[in-house]
Amino acid sequence: MLGPRLDVAYNKKRFLEVFPLVIEELLDTWKAESMPEEIVEWYRRSLEYNLLGGKLNFGMSVVDTVEILRGELLEGEEYRKAAILGWSLELLQAYFLVADDMMDASITRNRRPCWYRVEGVNNVAINDACMLESALYQLLKRHFRKESYYTDLLELFLDTTYRTEMGGLIDLVTTPEDRVDLSKFSLERYHLTIVYKTANFSCLPTRKQFALAQKILIPLGEYFQVQNDYLDCFAPPEKLGKIGTDILENKNTWVVNVALLHTTPAQRKILDENYGRKDSECERRVKEVFTAVGVEAKYQAFEQAAYKKIMGLVETIPAEGGELKRGVFTTYLSKFFGSSTCNW
Amino acid sequence: MLGPRLDVAYNKKRFLEVFPLVIEELLDTWKAESMPEEIVEWYRRSLEYNLLGGKLNFGMSVVDTVEILRGELLEGEEYRKAAILGWSLELLQAYFLVADDMMDASITRNRRPCWYRVEGVNNVAINDACMLESALYQLLKRHFRKESYYTDLLELFLDTTYRTEMGGLIDLVTTPEDRVDLSKFSLERYHLTIVYKTANFSCLPTRKQFALAQKILIPLGEYFQVQNDYLDCFAPPEKLGKIGTDILENKNTWVVNVALLHTTPAQRKILDENYGRKDSECERRVKEVFTAVGVEAKYQAFEQAAYKKIMGLVETIPAEGGELKRGVFTTYLSKFFGSSTCNW
Repeated sequence: MLGPRLDVAYNKKRFLEVFPLVIEELLDTWKAESMPEEIVEWYRRSLEYNLLGGKLNFGMSVVDTVEILRGELLEGEEYRKAAILGWSLELLQAYFLVADDMMDASITRNRRPCWYRVEGVNNVAINDACMLESALYQLLKRHFRKESYYTDLLELFLDTTYRTEMGGLIDLVTTPEDRVDLSKFSLERYHLTIVYKTANFSCLPTRKQFALAQKILIPLGEYFQVQNDYLDCFAPPEKLGKIGTDILENKNTWVVNVALLHTTPAQRKILDENYGRKDSECERRVKEVFTAVGVEAKYQAFEQAAYKKIMGLVETIPAEGGELKRGVFTTYLSKFFGSSTCNW
Repeated sequence: MLGPRLDVAYNKKRFLEVFPLVIEELLDTWKAESMPEEIVEWYRRSLEYNLLGGKLNFGMSVVDTVEILRGELLEGEEYRKAAILGWSLELLQAYFLVADDMMDASITRNRRPCWYRVEGVNNVAINDACMLESALYQLLKRHFRKESYYTDLLELFLDTTYRTEMGGLIDLVTTPEDRVDLSKFSLERYHLTIVYKTANFSCLPTRKQFALAQKILIPLGEYFQVQNDYLDCFAPPEKLGKIGTDILENKNTWVVNVALLHTTPAQRKILDENYGRKDSECERRVKEVFTAVGVEAKYQAFEQAAYKKIMGLVETIPAEGGELKRGVFTTYLSKFFGSSTCNW
């Protein structure tokens, strides 16, 4: 069942083949209106820089999902349309990443400087981020306007955006960079952030059609986010594709929340004094505590348990499926499970 | 014809009476989902700070427009619905202003610090700006979902956002803060920025229905923007409601473009050496040149000519009107003409 869809290289190749069309459609509007070449080129550079270089897992999953639901591989115009929807999701994702990188003062993304840190960009990245978001509605209008579900599709993207931003707000308010206060952290609030930010986002392609899917997608999204947090702290930068900065930036991560549950008073003091300080020596001390309380083993246990739990939930879907197919979830899970690199 | 609608105080009062409903609807969603109080309060504060304190001219103009088109004052539920649409436009406007203030490193807005400069906000303002934008689609969904024109309304807001952001990009790329180059300026590029940023934005409520309206709305939008630029430079801060920073920030304004057309080589040298420098002495020298080349008189002449031109265009609309009514435009114009304070 997972056969050809798991040929990631092939899937990425055909997904990338649709990219020039996306760029062309977005830029042609402006060229036709005699926009100065310099402006069109800036926009092209922002689109290319921020849409390429990542794993494209979310975008490709849209195609996977359509194929699993249809029960066959897509070709020609049908494939192209599913891929355009995938690229729309990648535009939304790119918007969040460009904006988040600015808010987090991150340094690198996908082994390159974050967009706002590229020479000459700076705060223009705020406008560029917003244009990435707005562009997706141009693609949807062009390719889906005649579909009966067009309005639902617009609402799905708009609602997802709003909820993800609310998740971002929880995150930002919980962990202000300038006032470190670990007593504000808790696994409960961490879980809430995920419910808004991640789980909500990854379930976008199927949410409307399948309320049942929600039950599986929240633990799935939680698993993705926990893995992301763990890798930020423990994966080597060359694997991660960026320099992890969660500790320096006072992030409310799974790692720190789990550690807080198991520290001795002395270890807690070290965390209070060193977490969220922009200093690599402080970061090293924090990592020492994380290792001492056994975060790594706890992560392995979490990952195994999450896998088991999600597969158990998937198996409550009838094997014959109705419209909801097990493959939608197992494909997601198989891409992420045991990964040692950043997945978005 | 313009009678009661020009009672700005009354119009503002009834428009503001709808505001608590807007806030309540936006916050109730989150309260119902057990969002932490702290997060809901942050969001409330952002909504109140960024939606109140300005003139609300754009939002109230939506109500004016509906009333003029209907040929009667609205009451009760009908008024409320038009006002919700007006507040949706104010949300879009607030999003642009919060984001622009960050990108321009502005200091004050409406006699108060810009939102990103409020204690504890900083870069969270990027997320807050985006939530102001996203929130408007929640209002539209709630109040207009059953209308036959709902999808058109979504597209109208989405397209306006995209085009306004493109106008913002022209502005930002033309005037990078760190590389002042007045040879990149021209009234032509200035005009282009307006066509995307301002004219497009102010015509939102009527654009779809009346292609003819465009012909009038571009000079109307241009007039608003030129006035805005002029006041930024020449209106005293207590009238302007903020400290004008266009010169310091290397803005491509009507004022500098007109001055560039009339400088002697010596004056041009002063502008090249002092425009866009973050230094109040440089700003003073630039203003001296502006005054020496007679920018103030040129503005008075521009304003008179713009008024005459717009009224001339308005008079090409049949007095009986079809669906397009003269009053839509004359109401806008009467609010802005001869104003000595910032109008948005």
